[in-house]
Amino acid sequence: MAWKQLLLNALESNAHLNHSSFLQLATIGTNGTPSNRTVVFRGFQDNTDNIQINTDARTRKIEELKLCSSAEICWYFTDSWEQFRINGNVDIIDGLNPDLLKLEQREKSWFASSLRSRSQYFWPNPGLPCLNEQAQPEVSLDPSTGPVDAFCLLILEPNQVDYLNLKSNKRLTFKSSVSAASKKNWIVERVNP
Amino acid sequence: MAWKQLLLNALESNAHLNHSSFLQLATIGTNGTPSNRTVVFRGFQDNTDNIQINTDARTRKIEELKLCSSAEICWYFTDSWEQFRINGNVDIIDGLNPDLLKLEQREKSWFASSLRSRSQYFWPNPGLPCLNEQAQPEVSLDPSTGPVDAFCLLILEPNQVDYLNLKSNKRLTFKSSVSAASKKNWIVERVNP
Repeated sequence: MAWKQLLLNALESNAHLNHSSFLQLATIGTNGTPSNRTVVFRGFQDNTDNIQINTDARTRKIEELKLCSSAEICWYFTDSWEQFRINGNVDIIDGLNPDLLKLEQREKSWFASSLRSRSQYFWPNPGLPCLNEQAQPEVSLDPSTGPVDAFCLLILEPNQVDYLNLKSNKRLTFKSSVSAASKKNWIVERVNP
Repeated sequence: MAWKQLLLNALESNAHLNHSSFLQLATIGTNGTPSNRTVVFRGFQDNTDNIQINTDARTRKIEELKLCSSAEICWYFTDSWEQFRINGNVDIIDGLNPDLLKLEQREKSWFASSLRSRSQYFWPNPGLPCLNEQAQPEVSLDPSTGPVDAFCLLILEPNQVDYLNLKSNKRLTFKSSVSAASKKNWIVERVNP
């Protein structure tokens, strides 16, 4: 079975848990040490294997990904005991992206997220010292307002996936290669857990 | 409040969930790309802030940590909605460690883990191709048998902690510095979430 189908199955069997869409994204920090944080899965890009994540352009991960686009997702499903480690490169799509198709995807992802999620992009600069106790201003957001400058869509294109099922102790590695015709092929191998 | 106390509180308020001791450990892969996987928290080292993790010496993370000892834990508590990002350096303690005190800690950690956990260190080399369907041999382990060669204790010494509470939107960063008397001091700052 392809890894994407395994992931879709895991999403379905853990869908009753709100945190099933939470995953950990590791990047290389600007000082060369690892960086790791929880982010939310925002679906696959159209009909591809690519993973969408929304983020604030003012967070450290953007600076980090600009220096090194390589990232690894670790996604553990707490009910089905399945782990996906997804390694790939991340494309950063902010409001200044020259590609109109990408800007369209960014807009789509903005409107697909809740008003509550969108309002966070109006908050003060993440990670900077908190100057007043009430750090999160109440934002009454017009639902028709398009993506603000701070809104950024990340697209991770997987090139390697490690799947582990802790109930069956089955482990599979999926490695991609690109053919002469630029078609991506996946090779799967069963490995020891 | 010190970050360790916040972490102890989170462990207590999420203790009803088996996966509350699961965290994601990011390292730098041998090819320079990020590496990320779920591991189990095995308690603090004695009366310190140091985090203990058991692992198999044959896994890739050992090779990676030998090249770059820097790591970042991302630990999300699914019930209390708290995230800890703990950055630090990892000390690898295998059976060949020349420090007798460290060898003692490794032995203590071996006997503190369940027989089921211990038996996994007798399994075939993790990550290598699985040669037969029944990859996990039944091991009847003598409870008095000490740590096997593959058993490795990792000790992460934190130097920076980022705490985020998604219910209150409170975020704190803790940074350590070492005084002239080699005493570790932590400075806390409230930052924007």
